[in-house]
Amino acid sequence: MDSIKQFQEKIESELKSIQYGSNPKELYEPIEYIMSLGGKRMRPVLVLMACDFFGGDVNKAIHPSIAIELFHNFTLVHDDIMDNAPLRRGNKTVHEKWNNNIAILSGDAMIVKAYQEICKTNSEILPTLLNIFSDTAIKVCEGQQMDMNYEKLTKVSILQYIKMIELKTAVLLAGALKIGAIIGKAKEEDANALYEFGKHIGIAFQLQDDILDVYANAEKFGKQKGGDIIANKKTYLLLKAMEMAENNRYMKEELQQWIAAPHFNAAEKVEAITSIYNFLNVKELARNEMKKHYDIAIKSLENIPVAEIKKKELVDFADSLMVREI
Amino acid sequence: MDSIKQFQEKIESELKSIQYGSNPKELYEPIEYIMSLGGKRMRPVLVLMACDFFGGDVNKAIHPSIAIELFHNFTLVHDDIMDNAPLRRGNKTVHEKWNNNIAILSGDAMIVKAYQEICKTNSEILPTLLNIFSDTAIKVCEGQQMDMNYEKLTKVSILQYIKMIELKTAVLLAGALKIGAIIGKAKEEDANALYEFGKHIGIAFQLQDDILDVYANAEKFGKQKGGDIIANKKTYLLLKAMEMAENNRYMKEELQQWIAAPHFNAAEKVEAITSIYNFLNVKELARNEMKKHYDIAIKSLENIPVAEIKKKELVDFADSLMVREI
Repeated sequence: MDSIKQFQEKIESELKSIQYGSNPKELYEPIEYIMSLGGKRMRPVLVLMACDFFGGDVNKAIHPSIAIELFHNFTLVHDDIMDNAPLRRGNKTVHEKWNNNIAILSGDAMIVKAYQEICKTNSEILPTLLNIFSDTAIKVCEGQQMDMNYEKLTKVSILQYIKMIELKTAVLLAGALKIGAIIGKAKEEDANALYEFGKHIGIAFQLQDDILDVYANAEKFGKQKGGDIIANKKTYLLLKAMEMAENNRYMKEELQQWIAAPHFNAAEKVEAITSIYNFLNVKELARNEMKKHYDIAIKSLENIPVAEIKKKELVDFADSLMVREI
Repeated sequence: MDSIKQFQEKIESELKSIQYGSNPKELYEPIEYIMSLGGKRMRPVLVLMACDFFGGDVNKAIHPSIAIELFHNFTLVHDDIMDNAPLRRGNKTVHEKWNNNIAILSGDAMIVKAYQEICKTNSEILPTLLNIFSDTAIKVCEGQQMDMNYEKLTKVSILQYIKMIELKTAVLLAGALKIGAIIGKAKEEDANALYEFGKHIGIAFQLQDDILDVYANAEKFGKQKGGDIIANKKTYLLLKAMEMAENNRYMKEELQQWIAAPHFNAAEKVEAITSIYNFLNVKELARNEMKKHYDIAIKSLENIPVAEIKKKELVDFADSLMVREI
């Protein structure tokens, strides 16, 4: 795991050295701001790890890794407008600190900046990297739109939900790994295997997040317990519970009442819905689904002709992130 | 000018054949919608013309020309949110027809789609095209932010204004021409000369637009006469008048009163401000500034080793667009 720290330092040092621009400051200050709010830099680390995984020169992967981080932060800026979110990593969101228009426009500029970082790559593999990057970016947009659509639907199937989190969250991890793999001169099939690893790890992460919202030790998890329940967020747990309650009139009504209630005691709502979850055993079902994707992820690595110790590093990193922040 | 019609048809036919995507429809329908609202396709035509200008194969310029049109339309979608504009080309704007979130997200997807179109180019010149494209895109964002900033300032210098319209409007014409030139295998200096042509023609266009708002035959121009005056839009005319009125207390006060008035008779306001413009002769000054940029544009073509007849085609096309729509 020492190398991961080194990777993180490399990324932080590169991020510190970037001059996004200065004029007009209303365009560039929000970019500096959001990029400096930190986070674990998980996605750019994945780019470097994937490159290193195939014995590549990680210095060649730095700019594309920054591109991924810029793109990720652009999605945060625009998603926060759409979600009307006041806080991001404990600080004001860009549209709160400035305004919506500035958040829209600086987000736009970040997409372009991301492409500029990718374009600093050796031109031989540039078209391939750009294809992966754009394909990933479009999928993330699709996932965000699906998420917005599903908020307004009363019924969302588990299949739809898994597809949505795959697009909104998982493919960016997958794309980051594939880009790193290509820079590390991986064969296409091996780069694709790493993409599959990232995709299924990403889905497993999100499912873990859904479970932890309800069942985590709140202090350790660092978020309000049951925040998703309070906000009626359509998590795997809620969707599964709704699906199972279809055949149980009493339970269905109770769920619906809590979801529709305009005023409620938050702790009471969390407790009531958690009881339903417990009764229906949805935690176990969510864990099974998570385990399924985790296992597919691990299996994806099987046929890659790389030393087991390298695979272990990658899996350990993924495991270390399983608790939060995806 | 026959070739221009052919170019337009080529572009329309390509636009008709594009499948942007289908799922989720809330992401893709707005893209189909805004791209089908038409317009003269001036920017993609410039890409093809510039390629043809240097004897290049215009078929190789089609995808990059679509990229420019996609980018232009993305700016319309996001600018319309920022400006709170209800109509675009006589139809509802995307955020009006759907909502702000959908307009933000489908605009984002359009940037990515634009890059995907650029990336369909022969990989040898791809890095060069991408550099021009991204550089142009960032400048357009800067120009839009400046425009938003200037709306809130009481004082904007003519120099600031010219810089703003250069970035917001003119560089996209310039970038379109330079991209076409590179595809047409122009030497760098010749491609840059065409860029300068586009930039100064673009500035001249915007100044012409400012003049026409007040002095055009309203029917021919197709817009409400004095629309900029009614909206207190900081055009060259208004900024120049404000600058000149600095030394004339009576005129300064009258201008300020009209600008600050919460309620007014539109026709009266247009007439009063037009009288000030006439008194200060700002129309003539605007025409001089326009002429200056037009002349620089024409002069930029001078040293390009291309037949005069080809240059005339380009200038004729620019002239034909001088009346509207930039």
